[in-house]
Amino acid sequence: MAKSAICIISGGMDSALAATIAKKEGYEIIGLHFNYHQRTQKKELEAFELICQDLDVAKKYVIDLDFFKQIGATALIGDEFDVPTDGLKPGVPITYVPFRNGIFLSIAAALAQKHKANAIYIGVVEEDSSGYPDCREHFIVAMQKAINLGLNENEVIIKTPLIHMKKSEIVKKALELGVCLEHTWSCYKNEEKACGLCDSCRLRLKGFKEAKAIDPITYESIPEDI
Amino acid sequence: MAKSAICIISGGMDSALAATIAKKEGYEIIGLHFNYHQRTQKKELEAFELICQDLDVAKKYVIDLDFFKQIGATALIGDEFDVPTDGLKPGVPITYVPFRNGIFLSIAAALAQKHKANAIYIGVVEEDSSGYPDCREHFIVAMQKAINLGLNENEVIIKTPLIHMKKSEIVKKALELGVCLEHTWSCYKNEEKACGLCDSCRLRLKGFKEAKAIDPITYESIPEDI
Repeated sequence: MAKSAICIISGGMDSALAATIAKKEGYEIIGLHFNYHQRTQKKELEAFELICQDLDVAKKYVIDLDFFKQIGATALIGDEFDVPTDGLKPGVPITYVPFRNGIFLSIAAALAQKHKANAIYIGVVEEDSSGYPDCREHFIVAMQKAINLGLNENEVIIKTPLIHMKKSEIVKKALELGVCLEHTWSCYKNEEKACGLCDSCRLRLKGFKEAKAIDPITYESIPEDI
Repeated sequence: MAKSAICIISGGMDSALAATIAKKEGYEIIGLHFNYHQRTQKKELEAFELICQDLDVAKKYVIDLDFFKQIGATALIGDEFDVPTDGLKPGVPITYVPFRNGIFLSIAAALAQKHKANAIYIGVVEEDSSGYPDCREHFIVAMQKAINLGLNENEVIIKTPLIHMKKSEIVKKALELGVCLEHTWSCYKNEEKACGLCDSCRLRLKGFKEAKAIDPITYESIPEDI
């Protein structure tokens, strides 16, 4: 039986690359996607489906987490706050979703138990990112320890192949491995085209610029300082 | 502003006592209950509502986790496995729900972030229990560390006042603190009366017997060896 990995695939460039690396490392992929009332739920789900096709995944789970709406407290869900579009600022931005990766990894751990999978891939990026605390390596290491203490005779390693990459390195690696970047969606806003102005678009655009590569998706606008 | 605690209240005796202790320790209680397609979902929710009334909670959350059905892999959900009724055995029983407490605590952590609560109460019991790995102190300590690394400037302590108690001590403490035990539901089966035969009923009955106390709820049958 092939070794299998639970791959958390949001639909963005990072998770698409992380899953592609899992495949390259010989894992059979169990794709895991979350609908949590994020503004771009529909776009992200479409991207997930396309990425799963590209990677020929063995099995996939689309999990609805309606309760994120009950929690709120983030600009990515509901209308309480606007998505900032005026550039990256120091500190944790209002797009932080409380303990999102902790919840995602806990559910991935339960699926790992079910499928006797020994790896979970997640495309978190520590430095060249929005600075969410649940994307840092210290957090991932602590979560892995907790997961292994809470599971029943199933050892799991959380693989974070992008955690210390710069966005430009992610772009280069994705192009090198043939990730279909036109199938990915990174924008925080829910418009026809990617807005180009939210933190996520800015980070992606900066990555492509520094990698001297062309982003295959189209943008509503591109900031002058990128 | 009063200090507040997220109290995970399943509806059983243990979580009712844990929440009562939270109140005694001066916390304003934010009650948190999960519907996860467990066989006794309806009974547990009723118990939760009664316990919240008894404790005069400040706020309550009932969170639906439909995805537990997609995960399954436990006798507590669906019809894949029967609930064992032939007595407690060594090892982790089939009633173990993969990483349930990890998922519950992760969601509690997100709510703690939202409400700036600094404590989470959970009624886990380590020794005198079914031996679920996610009820052990090592797991809770690791999870607390992960939570504090993943949250944004909000320190949380996970309080487990029952973790080293015997079931008989839990019964005695609950009686001492005036917990309405007739409002709690522990049975794993979904019948009108508690079955008396599942592991959870057996542990509860044994606790009352050793505490030389009378359980105010009625049972379908009581095993001879208790």
